[in-house]
Order: sequence, then C-alpha cells, then structure tokens
Amino acid sequence: MRGRRDRLEAALTAGELERMLVTDLTNVRYLTGFTGTNGACVCGPGLRLFFTDFRYTERAAAEVEGWEPITVEGDWLGAIAERLEGRVGFEDDQMAVRTLEKLKEKLGEGVEAVPAGGTVERLRRVKDAEELAAIEAASKIADEVWEWSVERGFAGRTEREVARAAEARIRELGGDPSFPAIVAAGPNGALPHAEPGEREIGRGELIVFDMGAKLDGYCSDGTRTYATGDPGEGAREVYAVVLAAQLASLAAVKAGAKGEDVDAVARKLIDEAGYGKHFGHGLGHGVGLEVHEGPRLSPRSDDLLEPSEVVTVEPGIYLPGQLGVRIEDFVVVAENGYRNLSSLPKELQLVE
Amino acid sequence: MRGRRDRLEAALTAGELERMLVTDLTNVRYLTGFTGTNGACVCGPGLRLFFTDFRYTERAAAEVEGWEPITVEGDWLGAIAERLEGRVGFEDDQMAVRTLEKLKEKLGEGVEAVPAGGTVERLRRVKDAEELAAIEAASKIADEVWEWSVERGFAGRTEREVARAAEARIRELGGDPSFPAIVAAGPNGALPHAEPGEREIGRGELIVFDMGAKLDGYCSDGTRTYATGDPGEGAREVYAVVLAAQLASLAAVKAGAKGEDVDAVARKLIDEAGYGKHFGHGLGHGVGLEVHEGPRLSPRSDDLLEPSEVVTVEPGIYLPGQLGVRIEDFVVVAENGYRNLSSLPKELQLVE
Repeated sequence: MRGRRDRLEAALTAGELERMLVTDLTNVRYLTGFTGTNGACVCGPGLRLFFTDFRYTERAAAEVEGWEPITVEGDWLGAIAERLEGRVGFEDDQMAVRTLEKLKEKLGEGVEAVPAGGTVERLRRVKDAEELAAIEAASKIADEVWEWSVERGFAGRTEREVARAAEARIRELGGDPSFPAIVAAGPNGALPHAEPGEREIGRGELIVFDMGAKLDGYCSDGTRTYATGDPGEGAREVYAVVLAAQLASLAAVKAGAKGEDVDAVARKLIDEAGYGKHFGHGLGHGVGLEVHEGPRLSPRSDDLLEPSEVVTVEPGIYLPGQLGVRIEDFVVVAENGYRNLSSLPKELQLVE
Repeated sequence: MRGRRDRLEAALTAGELERMLVTDLTNVRYLTGFTGTNGACVCGPGLRLFFTDFRYTERAAAEVEGWEPITVEGDWLGAIAERLEGRVGFEDDQMAVRTLEKLKEKLGEGVEAVPAGGTVERLRRVKDAEELAAIEAASKIADEVWEWSVERGFAGRTEREVARAAEARIRELGGDPSFPAIVAAGPNGALPHAEPGEREIGRGELIVFDMGAKLDGYCSDGTRTYATGDPGEGAREVYAVVLAAQLASLAAVKAGAKGEDVDAVARKLIDEAGYGKHFGHGLGHGVGLEVHEGPRLSPRSDDLLEPSEVVTVEPGIYLPGQLGVRIEDFVVVAENGYRNLSSLPKELQLVE
C-alpha cells in the first residue's frame, strides 16, 4: 500500500496542501488497510499518522503498516488537531458540518482547513495489482453463482427466492453480496431498482439478474438477462439491441477514452433503434471498495479512462409495464482496450 | 406514523423553527416509512413534503403516506431549497460541509439554515406500538438462533463457523443480522470487539456470543456467555459478578431513572468485587432502527429514561489474555420497571 500513500503525498503537493486529513472510512481503509469502524489518518511530507481508539488498537496493529499508530483516549478531534499544521485538506464532501465546526475550534494558530473532498477517491480510480486480484476473485464468485442459479432454474420460483438463494450461495463461497441482488422478472424488469418481490416467475419471461460479490472489501458488479422460454419476438429484438449496444460501447473502452464518448456509442445505437427514451441511466461506473465509484461513463462525464481502472458497461432498455433488458460486464481498462472480468456468455439464454 | 410527524412539528415550535429539513436516511425512514437510498423530507406547520428521484417514485408511492411526494428531476438541492422559508433546522451532525455550502447558495432571501441535528433522533428514543412489535419479533428470531446454536454445540468449531452459521440461520428465519455476530472464545473474549476468527473453540472455555436480528428495519441486540464444560473457579466467579451486576442494574431501570445512575449500580458492584478497571464500556444504549441509538446508560449520561424506550443492559468483565464475560438483555422501559425482551436463561450454561 506504499504506492497509495506516496500518490496521496504527491496529490497534496499538487494541491498546495501541507497535510491531508482523511476521515471517510473507505478512504482510510484504502490508504491504511484498517477495517474497523473508527479510524482517521493524516498524511503530509514524510508524515503518516493513523488514529483509532482502544477498541481497535490490536486490530490496527495487525492491519495497518507504514502509518504511525495513535490510540486516542478522550478528545478525538483534539488529538488529531494538535498534529495538523499549515493548509490542511479535509473531506468536505464527507465531513459533517458539526464535526468541522468542532475541529476548527481546536486547530492551532495559522492552521487552515481547506476543502479537498474527492482527493483520495481520485486515487482509488486506478487499481493496483492487489486490488485487481481481489476484484477478479470476487467476480469469479459471482459468475459461479449465476451459473449455479441457472442450473436451479427460475420459472415457478419467486424473485425473492432466487435473489436470497444467490446471496446465500455467495456467502457459502466465502464472499458477501456487494449489494442486495436484483431479480426482476416480466414487467418488474422495467424498474431498474426493483426490489425482488413475491411474484412468481412465469414462463416466457425476461429476468434481469443484477448481482455482485465482495471479497476482502472489493466488489464485483454484473448483470445478465435470461428468458424462461421464448419471450416473443419483441423481447428478442430489444435484447438484440441492448447486446449490440453493449458490445459496441465495450469496444470503445480504452485508456484515453472520455466517459461521455463511450456512453454515446451505446446511446446512439439504442436511440437509432427507437428506444432512446427507454435507456434512463448512465452506461457505467467505476467499481472497487465501493460498488459505485469513479470514473463515470455517462452523458455528462468528462472523465478520461486510465489503465487499471475498473468500470462497468451496462446499457439497458426498460419498457414500462412490459419488460426490461440490461447486460452488464465489468472490465479493467488497458492501454489499447480492456480485459473483461465477466466470463459468462451474453447471447440470450433460455432457462427453465 | 402520524404521531411521529406531529411530534416533529411540536419539536420545531419548541425550537423556534419554521421548517425542519431531514436528510439522514434513517430519520427519513422513521418519519415517512421510505426505505430507498435517496430521499429527504421537509416538515413545517401543516407542511409535509417528501423528496425522491425517478428511481424511487413507485416505491415512495407504496411506502410513504401522509407526506406530499415530489420527484425531483435535475437539481436536487434547488428543488428542496425553493420549498424552505424562515428558520430552517438542518441535521448538522449528518449533513456534509459541501452539501450545506451548496444548499446555502440556493436558499431564498431571509431563509436561514439553523443547526438542529439530533432533533429526530430525540423523537426516535420513544417507540410506538408498531416499532415495539417489530423489535419484539426481531428479538424472538435472535433468541431462537441462540438456542439453535447451543443445540449444535461450540467445542471443535471455529468462532467464525459459529458466527456465520448463526447469521445464516437469522436469514433463514426471515431476518437479517443487525450487526456481524461476535463469537469470542477463551482469551478472545477479553476483546470486546473481536472479529470471529479461525481459532477452534476448546473445552472448558467461556464464549461471548453477541448477536442481533433486524426485521422491518428494527434491530435486536443481546449477549450470552456460555461455557464449553467447566471453565474453572475463577471464570465462574467472574460470571457470577457480571450476572449480579446485570440483575441489579436491570432492577434500576424504570421511567425517570438517569442513565448514569443505572450504569453506576452495575459499576459499583463490579468495582467492589475488584474488577472495576475491567469493565471498560458503558452499561447500555438505546436500540431501534439503529443498533446503537439514544438513550445512553453510561457514567456520563444525563439521559432520563422514558416509558417505551428500548435499552440494552450489558455489563461485562474482560481479563486480558484470559477471558471475557458479558451478559446483555434488552428491555422496554416502563413506568415502574421494564419489560424484558430477552427470553433466554442467564445462569451459566455448559454447552458441549
């Protein structure tokens, strides 16, 4: 994790900051490896301080390396404040208003709190080898669970049964769900954030099955749409359009590509097929310690893709009251393309 | 949920606020019933506005009653700001610094944002009948899982196996774990926040087993300490002290009692037995939509208990390198005492 610390130090210099105070727990975990529920860190030139309380002293000793550990007893913000100096970046997009007020009261003379939210999130976009290994392992678990679910079949079971069973299977394989699985059949497929319900899955229906596993803190994210028998010509056409859009936009993924341009490839194709207004979300997003993080692939994203970023590519068409189709891979951006972490077939699979 | 809205309106009047903007999702759920991941509400005299985005319009229609629903397209904070007037309470202990800055830019003339964090949390302390029913049902699930775990036995299994199996059983019974179960055997019992590990549970050991279920959003929380065969005289003595402290402090729970006084009953008893420095946490805390909420039972708590608050009573003794004992019930405060939601026996159980 040394590279992460050093990249943060470089970012501070670029932002003309003497110190960075990191309080968001996901960012703290990223930088230090700490997995407890109370921790913070302060980074500066040659300075690496990690703060926690007595409950986590032992865990920090086991997990945190390369940061000087400080167990705070009593005044948490005071203990942090007395180690700050100069222009101090803080995570203004995370820190609560009241916390900042209290912190400011404790800062020494000449110490200035400077909004710097997003600094660590920017670093998190590019994954190192250790992160890619965890993401890939999480993806393997999820793929195994899709295959296992397909073997068990869909028709006659409720959406909730299928979703719960898949989540339980992820846990049996040593992971955790990275979010509650979405299993949305028939007309429910048109609701992109449907909760799996008590509706029994019928025959000849499309099923949107969106799922991810989490391993060592790292998430996977993917979607397949299955059919329980022939779903009819209209549904097959929608599927074909989404698949074409998915393949075309996937082919646009590479280092240097702009988020809005990759999104536009899929959007144009869906638009030209006459379904433009039924693709109501962005094409994709980064995945890592959080299932949604940077960069974004969407109509308003000026993010430029970099090697070793991990992004989803997930166009969809949602016809209200009828059906939904979404096909989602997630991939590692490479210099001249990408490496696909999803191993599952994408042609429409008929499943009993 | 009408009572909750009306109590909030009364709290506003008492705080000389014209409006309250609620953005914390747990508080939003408490007031409106909404379970999605993006929502906010604004309360004022006769005014009940609920905000969400297109993804949750349908869910809000199904879940939210008594609040005028508004689906925001585009500028989220702008849409909220234009419905605010006068002195507006906001949750300064939750809202991010950057969010407040952006909100302030959008407020109309004469509109003032006033820190009012904790207002809804204060209301949440006292549970209504619907909440108590959910909490009681969650508690029943957890009690069933302790009994199930005891039947399966502990010795020869790892802490992690026992914990994972219990969590899976909670899910099978229709709930979710309200936090990752703690199973800490032998010397690990001395770490109040130990993660269940790969250590195999031996014979003649004490096992701290802290677990809770969640149902309809409401949590249970309890702890039992078991022994795998005779743990020895010293361990039995520690257990007896904790049990005496638990029973004595439980007897001090009633409406009007002060948090620090209830805590002191257990602390004095443990202190007099010579283990004072080994009881390093507060006696208890409120439980509801969150597993830790108000009121607090601790040395510095001036909370006065009220009827229908739900609190844990959980003294413990932790001897580093040796063992830990914690016994935790959770109870509903009543006018002249309490109703215990934990149905499990508290004398030391020997489990294979």
